[in-house]
Amino acid sequence: MTTTDVKDKQAAYRDELVKQGLLIPTGVDGLYGRSGVFEDVIERFDALITVWGRGDGAEVMRFPPALNRRAFEQSEYLKSFPHLAGTIHSFAGDERAHRTLLRRLEEGQDWTEDQVATDVVMTPAACYPVYPTVAARGPLPGEGRLIDVFSYCFRHEPSLDPARMQLFRMREYIRIGTPDQVMEFRELWIERGRDLIASLGLPVGIDVANDPFFGRAGKMLSSSQRDQKLKFELLIPITSEESPTACLSFNYHQEHFGHLWDIRTADGEVAHTACVGFGMERVALALFRHHGFDPATWPAPVRAVLWG
Amino acid sequence: MTTTDVKDKQAAYRDELVKQGLLIPTGVDGLYGRSGVFEDVIERFDALITVWGRGDGAEVMRFPPALNRRAFEQSEYLKSFPHLAGTIHSFAGDERAHRTLLRRLEEGQDWTEDQVATDVVMTPAACYPVYPTVAARGPLPGEGRLIDVFSYCFRHEPSLDPARMQLFRMREYIRIGTPDQVMEFRELWIERGRDLIASLGLPVGIDVANDPFFGRAGKMLSSSQRDQKLKFELLIPITSEESPTACLSFNYHQEHFGHLWDIRTADGEVAHTACVGFGMERVALALFRHHGFDPATWPAPVRAVLWG
Repeated sequence: MTTTDVKDKQAAYRDELVKQGLLIPTGVDGLYGRSGVFEDVIERFDALITVWGRGDGAEVMRFPPALNRRAFEQSEYLKSFPHLAGTIHSFAGDERAHRTLLRRLEEGQDWTEDQVATDVVMTPAACYPVYPTVAARGPLPGEGRLIDVFSYCFRHEPSLDPARMQLFRMREYIRIGTPDQVMEFRELWIERGRDLIASLGLPVGIDVANDPFFGRAGKMLSSSQRDQKLKFELLIPITSEESPTACLSFNYHQEHFGHLWDIRTADGEVAHTACVGFGMERVALALFRHHGFDPATWPAPVRAVLWG
Repeated sequence: MTTTDVKDKQAAYRDELVKQGLLIPTGVDGLYGRSGVFEDVIERFDALITVWGRGDGAEVMRFPPALNRRAFEQSEYLKSFPHLAGTIHSFAGDERAHRTLLRRLEEGQDWTEDQVATDVVMTPAACYPVYPTVAARGPLPGEGRLIDVFSYCFRHEPSLDPARMQLFRMREYIRIGTPDQVMEFRELWIERGRDLIASLGLPVGIDVANDPFFGRAGKMLSSSQRDQKLKFELLIPITSEESPTACLSFNYHQEHFGHLWDIRTADGEVAHTACVGFGMERVALALFRHHGFDPATWPAPVRAVLWG
């Protein structure tokens, strides 16, 4: 199948989701409103994740969809993914500057170039605010930490593929501790993730993967990430059997964040971290694709899992 | 009481919320993580609003915390509140530009000035994406429309007051129709809002209000808005009895949005609009202030209303 075929299928599925009223177009590719039906599926899937993780005693943290710019700068995200990041800018002028802004807007000129960067940037992945928060608490307890987060994330990658939104939600569990603690967590969630998605009547594959690092140097980072098996993805076919969509990811960051934020284990070692991320919209899109656009008609076992 | 006293009390309450673990500091004033306890209160209050509005048959729409920049430009928000708006900018360069960005970052220089405005801006109020969406559907049905939205909103106003966050959530019902339909809706919700908040054991006041329009011309807009009683607020004391906090607002926009988006009633007239907005974090802060930091110890009637 050619790239064009894949893109056509993605665009066709997006159009169908809009026609069915599940997604509301805004005029920007990758930016959609959601219907009440769509949101109900997201909420029920979110609750299902909670059920599977309940026994682990994770600490719940909920951050807004933006984070401290200084913390973001320190995270090294800009080294790897400058093209995806979103910085929030604001007007900082007086009444005269305001008149200039309005005149430019009126005349169809660019009014945005005088906007000034604020102290906040869009959250690129739900776990980013967690590392400085945990670091600020001092050394980890012996059992490490397990954090539960959920937020809208932004990535600047306008696309016709409904599974590649510019603003989408990510639920994550983040494990911070010794290499053993962190690897055990990741293995556990690879198994759980597979079982959880299978319980929804969806086809599941797991594969090694890499992040979309920027530029030529990024290609080497991608290869290294694959070779070391640092990233696995749970794949579900949505618009293509040949190119299934990554709906969950299981990431082992080694010492990356522990080193950046100086997070230490109880023994004084640099902490390791791992996370499991659930692409909420992607799983919803997979459910609509495989079971139909009306959840009332989904198979009884799937309905029972989600609506109890 | 002086302004300094008010600000001291606001900062003291913020510090107490952080100490109690309900808010998680990020290093930026007005940007906080929330604990699981805080989020549970938000979720239960959100569900309570749904109960009060259930009989009205509102259509649920859920938008991400950003909207189409062209739609935002058309909304005239920049005329009135340029200082509060947030535009999302992104890197648009090649590998050479990327090296420059990283060098500036490394050397502590401003790396943000080459960021380019994207097609999306932060949502300033939850109802903003609704008007173009409803307009795109053509003339209103005879009964008009009633829409239910909920989203994070951004306003660039860093503050020590925990009730003035840069990123906060707003639930809204929006009524779009004839002047009679819209005014009836607003009167209904002023009464309902008062009863709803009273059911939570909180002191309630309702007063005419105005938006924080920018500049000297804005002062006239504010006076006009007050004189015409276009905006009412439901006030609850949080950090000050003398300066209670606006927790709900009831806004009559007259033909403003109907005219901007050319929304027409079934009779071909320009539609009027009104909305009721619930400041989710503000109501949660009021509950913690009046009933204590641990919801398990809140008065039984309040617990019954929220947790059933």
